[in-house]
Amino acid sequence: MSDPNIVQSFNRDDIKAMEQRQRANFINSLSGFKSANLVGTQSSQGLANLALFSSVFHLGADPALMGMIVRPHTVPRDTLENLMETGYFTINHVYKNIVAQAHQCSARYPAEVDEFQVVGLSPEYLDGFCAPFVAESQVKIGLRLEQVLPIALNQTQMVIGAIEHVILHGETLHEDGYVDIEKSGSVAISGLDGYHETQSIGRFAYAKVGQLPRKL
Amino acid sequence: MSDPNIVQSFNRDDIKAMEQRQRANFINSLSGFKSANLVGTQSSQGLANLALFSSVFHLGADPALMGMIVRPHTVPRDTLENLMETGYFTINHVYKNIVAQAHQCSARYPAEVDEFQVVGLSPEYLDGFCAPFVAESQVKIGLRLEQVLPIALNQTQMVIGAIEHVILHGETLHEDGYVDIEKSGSVAISGLDGYHETQSIGRFAYAKVGQLPRKL
Repeated sequence: MSDPNIVQSFNRDDIKAMEQRQRANFINSLSGFKSANLVGTQSSQGLANLALFSSVFHLGADPALMGMIVRPHTVPRDTLENLMETGYFTINHVYKNIVAQAHQCSARYPAEVDEFQVVGLSPEYLDGFCAPFVAESQVKIGLRLEQVLPIALNQTQMVIGAIEHVILHGETLHEDGYVDIEKSGSVAISGLDGYHETQSIGRFAYAKVGQLPRKL
Repeated sequence: MSDPNIVQSFNRDDIKAMEQRQRANFINSLSGFKSANLVGTQSSQGLANLALFSSVFHLGADPALMGMIVRPHTVPRDTLENLMETGYFTINHVYKNIVAQAHQCSARYPAEVDEFQVVGLSPEYLDGFCAPFVAESQVKIGLRLEQVLPIALNQTQMVIGAIEHVILHGETLHEDGYVDIEKSGSVAISGLDGYHETQSIGRFAYAKVGQLPRKL
């Protein structure tokens, strides 16, 4: 760690005055570590699409829902159009052996390009489920579109999906339901373009009033 | 990593049949690594509150917006009530030296309890900003409430805040705006209770069609 006595402060005006790309890097760093996922969809013509998202988040366990933010007029529009047309999409963890391929999926390929082919990843299909999974991924989730919620403040859209299928590679599932995604090799993202492996600090027991925190 | 040839599959019915706590652990693991943040608020009576959130996400850089999901009828309701009353809240990265204290903030303390005091963290105030920052945190963000968006599907709420202040400790800011949150010691969360340090794989150059991915 660096010297914590060095302090830099920024207010709203400082942020507004930043150059656009600089501000994008800066603000994207502030939420903390982000999930790294490849989102697979298929067009109504049957063309596969794969896009990198760092905005997938947990929305609820019962019903089992996941959310992700889609920006306006950017690459993942193919993703949005496809999932609205077909009603299905997949979320596939980026793991350490496919980071370069995953990052390349963020390039602005035209709609008619199949990112799987271009970057060298393999589509995998489940019977009756019309969105491609990433074969190489160690944690794969198949979702049915539930809702696209427009966020008026900045013209982004929040996509909400219900979990229909989960495929786990490796012995990563604990008896209590926890999936050891570090053992899966899943990576985290910082900012727009930083990728990180993880090292477990530990799991903590359910926190209770009047008890000291303790590791499981 | 574990043996990728071992494959476990789950469909919607398998997930529905899980015991509640098991399903919570399972589904919470699937989105990938999550941010670890302490959210500071103050009640209209001036009482400080601190709650742990793993659902803070980047929403947009211009305007600079962050979002987080608040579950219904759970501990962070104090957070929601406070930020709706005062219009302000802070987001503070959990870093490796305060993981145990941060986790303890997820216990169901009554509204009249000041979590800062109970868990042993220090509130820090900026002139004219009525929400407490966590002094120990290395990345602190002060936000003004923009919107609370109800998500009808599961009665959660999405809180959207506009960034008003950013305070960084240490030499973590790069010239291009990227903040090295690994150098800040920020941690990531997996599932409901797993904490992880990170190890950088590298930053990648902006991905372009027709170019191979390359590290910065």
